[in-house]
Amino acid sequence: MDANATERSLKSLEPAAGNGLLDRRAFLRGGAALAAAMTGYSAQPAAAAPLAEDPWSQAPGGNVPAYGVPSRFEKGVARTLSNPNAEPRTQHARTPHHLLQGSLTPNGLHFVISHSGDPDVDPAAHRLVIHGLVKRPLVFTLDALARYPLVSRTTFLECGGNSAPLFSPSPIQASVQALHGLASCAEWTGVMLSTLLEETGVDPKARWLVAEGADAPRLSRSVPLGKALDDAMIALYQNGERLMPGNGYPMRLLLPGWEGNMNVKWLRRLKLIEAPAMTYYESRTYAQILPGGKAYQFYFLQEVKSFIAHPSPGLALKGPGFYEISGIAYSGNGRISKVMVSADGGASWAQAALQEPVLSKAFTRFRVPWNWNGAPAVLQSRAWDEAGNVQPTRAQIVAVRGETLKPPPVLGFPSQHYNGPTSWAVDASGGVKHVYA
Amino acid sequence: MDANATERSLKSLEPAAGNGLLDRRAFLRGGAALAAAMTGYSAQPAAAAPLAEDPWSQAPGGNVPAYGVPSRFEKGVARTLSNPNAEPRTQHARTPHHLLQGSLTPNGLHFVISHSGDPDVDPAAHRLVIHGLVKRPLVFTLDALARYPLVSRTTFLECGGNSAPLFSPSPIQASVQALHGLASCAEWTGVMLSTLLEETGVDPKARWLVAEGADAPRLSRSVPLGKALDDAMIALYQNGERLMPGNGYPMRLLLPGWEGNMNVKWLRRLKLIEAPAMTYYESRTYAQILPGGKAYQFYFLQEVKSFIAHPSPGLALKGPGFYEISGIAYSGNGRISKVMVSADGGASWAQAALQEPVLSKAFTRFRVPWNWNGAPAVLQSRAWDEAGNVQPTRAQIVAVRGETLKPPPVLGFPSQHYNGPTSWAVDASGGVKHVYA
Repeated sequence: MDANATERSLKSLEPAAGNGLLDRRAFLRGGAALAAAMTGYSAQPAAAAPLAEDPWSQAPGGNVPAYGVPSRFEKGVARTLSNPNAEPRTQHARTPHHLLQGSLTPNGLHFVISHSGDPDVDPAAHRLVIHGLVKRPLVFTLDALARYPLVSRTTFLECGGNSAPLFSPSPIQASVQALHGLASCAEWTGVMLSTLLEETGVDPKARWLVAEGADAPRLSRSVPLGKALDDAMIALYQNGERLMPGNGYPMRLLLPGWEGNMNVKWLRRLKLIEAPAMTYYESRTYAQILPGGKAYQFYFLQEVKSFIAHPSPGLALKGPGFYEISGIAYSGNGRISKVMVSADGGASWAQAALQEPVLSKAFTRFRVPWNWNGAPAVLQSRAWDEAGNVQPTRAQIVAVRGETLKPPPVLGFPSQHYNGPTSWAVDASGGVKHVYA
Repeated sequence: MDANATERSLKSLEPAAGNGLLDRRAFLRGGAALAAAMTGYSAQPAAAAPLAEDPWSQAPGGNVPAYGVPSRFEKGVARTLSNPNAEPRTQHARTPHHLLQGSLTPNGLHFVISHSGDPDVDPAAHRLVIHGLVKRPLVFTLDALARYPLVSRTTFLECGGNSAPLFSPSPIQASVQALHGLASCAEWTGVMLSTLLEETGVDPKARWLVAEGADAPRLSRSVPLGKALDDAMIALYQNGERLMPGNGYPMRLLLPGWEGNMNVKWLRRLKLIEAPAMTYYESRTYAQILPGGKAYQFYFLQEVKSFIAHPSPGLALKGPGFYEISGIAYSGNGRISKVMVSADGGASWAQAALQEPVLSKAFTRFRVPWNWNGAPAVLQSRAWDEAGNVQPTRAQIVAVRGETLKPPPVLGFPSQHYNGPTSWAVDASGGVKHVYA
């Protein structure tokens, strides 16, 4: 390394914001200064003795299975279940963001909310009908859909109630999985709904459609025709393979950027109609009640949001020195344009690096290097999208949408569409707690 | 739809090449003509009676599990195993491309070649040492690596022996899984090797490194230092979660675009050296013998390739009409720039649509609409990459690299680096067979 490179490297280790946040390009520049700074915190000098001869290197390994599963040492990398015995109420399975990396959620760990378990749908018998205000009502088998042009799109899905614990007046002590685990991201492949509506034709009177699932509660939601003709998809594949049972196998409606429950799973019916159907799920379950007593009747959009996953509660820091802060940002409006990270509770901010490719309505992994000096710190992220939207402060969102009235763990209203910041307090021992800052 | 749109739509249904290949934009334009053309082949008019009430809509579904698995109806979507009883020889598990869609391979179905099964590595005990011609030999635990900056990259991996059956003098009747199933694609997240080599420092005499796995055969390969400092990664995550056991858990070397076996799995050691180590696996197993008796000693690159997966043997066409031809293209040199598809055995070609985003050294899904008239057809694809490389014809590649001498199923040499075309003959009944064309 020449002298100029060393100088650039040293410069790159200067703070970009308070409490040790470094320039996002520090690691990219690399260099001797960083190397010296890292050594001792992370890697250890190699001993003179050769590496240990571990038992798994001494004997043949196990059978390669027809369908691979994670190592037995990864059993803890699992979804948390709200109703593991499948009692007759909703089941939630939350994504463990603190144990994942990158921008995709593997299919085994994609979040699921099911109001009546995972129906065991036989794909050969399942049908999708499109009817109502159309010129030619049609029924589609899975084989029929396979003959249409397919498109692939990476997009997040998020429950409207994700992050609801942050409406609580005091910070609920929980992991990022408990707070934000009802959001995931996958590559979906299917047929554009607009293609199928070209086939059925659309009666000029049609303004909405109601989508109905084949689950026992027949979850139904009304969707404006504009969205149906824009980027709505009948999704058939998830990260390359057929949809998971909990994610709508064999087909679901995909409405990129709109709240999860509208992306109707086990989709059996689309009926074109003049006015919204006012179904149970849209008039009661997913209608956000506001402080003044009014409700958001149709609040479709999942707004710009971000949270830090590394570190987060349960992932304690092991002594001062260099760490990478990383997390996830996304917006139902399009691409993430910027993420700022603070280590001093919002007093100062450093710009995070965004992992390319940054895709519209998809998880974007952000990262920023951090030289923790061992003193208490408060970490927070704030995201912007390409439409110019920015995450509100918690005070701003609570002013409009209210705070939970009942104490935890019984959460009352509001319970939908929190997209404010999340703050993690790091104490001197390296422990991480949820705080409001 | 106005008259102009209808006219554009009709025009879009004009052939782009012989035997019914349509313009890749035909489906995007949509329109009444396409709708009329599709109806009767695919969707059926909806009956007056309501949809059947299926049993899974009549009762609660099953428990949502902590780690999701595919539907029981997808049991056939599995890797084929060359050695299911784990006899003391290599195990191959091949990706079922004909049953997948999009551009990612789900983790359960990523191809695996293991010379001694899947070692059961304890991640807490596993170590990576970097030593040899370095300034500071270092040992890394998984926890230590977690403190470095991570990067994510979607890239394919392909065995140098993938597609080897196409060296046979006559076409072997097998599925796309049997012919091309030793290639897969995932989003990998890990630490750039260049970052770690900044830490250890590099002795100016170092020109290569030898990478060693922790599997029983200690698979070892020599890697030029230039690649190590370019885009090599120590991969820790695969599609968001920790690596699968068969893909190197808890860490592997990732050398984007280079033959699979060099991407050493269960990585335990990188030793910087002056000249290649001439290991067993590089001097014997993966050294391609050429017709003149010489060998490619180090043939790293996986060259530009493509194949059609839909339709392919085992996926019979169900009568004439519209279909989507789709497949996968990739190149170790960078991005795919163009894929051409023929339905008449190479006499004429239509340009395929490439699914965005087209990423460097990653699978790219290509698609082209096809109006099959029911007569015999021969389907073939040909890909170009951004560096200007194009797939050779089979005659060209055989002239340089030879043909298999032994009859199948015993394959002799050559068995490495076939990147010519693959041709599927469709007969009048819709059956699909492997042919040379």
